[in-house]
Amino acid sequence: MKAALKNPRRRIRTLLITENAARRLADEGVSTPAHAEIVRADVLAARLPPDAVHQGLFAEADALPALGLVDMPTDGIVLILDQITDPHNVGAILRSAAAFAADGVVTTIRHSPQATGVLAKSASGALELVPLVAVPNLARALATMKTQGFFLVGLDSAGAIDLSSAPLRLPLGLVVGGEGKGLRQLTRKSCDLVARLALPGQIKSLNVSNATALALYVAAARLGVNPASNQADPIS
Amino acid sequence: MKAALKNPRRRIRTLLITENAARRLADEGVSTPAHAEIVRADVLAARLPPDAVHQGLFAEADALPALGLVDMPTDGIVLILDQITDPHNVGAILRSAAAFAADGVVTTIRHSPQATGVLAKSASGALELVPLVAVPNLARALATMKTQGFFLVGLDSAGAIDLSSAPLRLPLGLVVGGEGKGLRQLTRKSCDLVARLALPGQIKSLNVSNATALALYVAAARLGVNPASNQADPIS
Repeated sequence: MKAALKNPRRRIRTLLITENAARRLADEGVSTPAHAEIVRADVLAARLPPDAVHQGLFAEADALPALGLVDMPTDGIVLILDQITDPHNVGAILRSAAAFAADGVVTTIRHSPQATGVLAKSASGALELVPLVAVPNLARALATMKTQGFFLVGLDSAGAIDLSSAPLRLPLGLVVGGEGKGLRQLTRKSCDLVARLALPGQIKSLNVSNATALALYVAAARLGVNPASNQADPIS
Repeated sequence: MKAALKNPRRRIRTLLITENAARRLADEGVSTPAHAEIVRADVLAARLPPDAVHQGLFAEADALPALGLVDMPTDGIVLILDQITDPHNVGAILRSAAAFAADGVVTTIRHSPQATGVLAKSASGALELVPLVAVPNLARALATMKTQGFFLVGLDSAGAIDLSSAPLRLPLGLVVGGEGKGLRQLTRKSCDLVARLALPGQIKSLNVSNATALALYVAAARLGVNPASNQADPIS
């Protein structure tokens, strides 16, 4: 919620806030819109389902404007999710993308969860920080990214080469497959190479959000991703 | 399920299996208990909730025998979970523990999910591979581990030192706090040091299972954890 208030791209239509919450936000240097309305806690509670946990504010906001591939920077790391369906996983991946200063996340319009509810909660504010682009056709999106200069690396536990010794360069697209199914055939073919994570134990694959976090860590460390590159609003 | 059949510690009371599934398991070299009963798919379906997804077998099994700290090897890496409550997270962590050849996972009896259902599914077979020890008092368990020689490193986004340059040694206990709350005060005090993961982006913490996977990766790589050490049944 705090991240949404700080996001210049997020239009807040209604904001009801308790005096305490307004003071807390002001202390944290977060400005509230001019049309925010100070209300008593019981007025706020009446707008929410019974037992809903809130932090003294209630907002109605427009969905973020839809973004296209052209809106993403083409100099850093971008994640491409091939039909990852669990909103916990997509949310955790967005959070990791923000933590590792990735430039964006591409998903498919179909077979991907909505950017609301469980996903938004799991993303922990990252929806406001990382451009999320939903495309109708992933193979076509990958072809476009190639013309933009991206080097595309698919992740697969049976990949031919260990990601930590694979040739990598910026801009990099890390392509991750769905739970259980992995990369689809056409997605795999669109990648410049398919790499695995080196796992010394008896289980040879990780939960998809865990694998993605690890891949981001390895790639960001090897490519020297600079935190500064992600400080400016990547959209404006 | 396959992992459960292969686990000598797991007692299967009832096993109903279709002919196809029995053939598939035989092809994969997995032996079924002598009392397995070949049934038609509709007989199997009648034992399950409507729409349940199954792979041609239905088993009733005893819970794994409860383990204590004394059952864990004391030469590798052990994870300690301080009240991680989401079964998706604990399951994913068990899976990562198996993937990184960790020797065990310690949880608290209270404020931890049961080792069934969502947790077992998220663990993807790891429950059969990684000893899971539930303790009544975590601070006391950590004290015991210290006497066993463990070096205890807590993970916290505000930790004083980056895990990738922190002094580490085997046996290592990696201590991870619950969602949102992090390490409890007494847990933190029990650690030899508290380390952070270096995150270059604007969000400074990861989903707890993602953070744990990353910490395991860093620690296993730095300590040269040998896959072979985890090949033998660590309990027998």
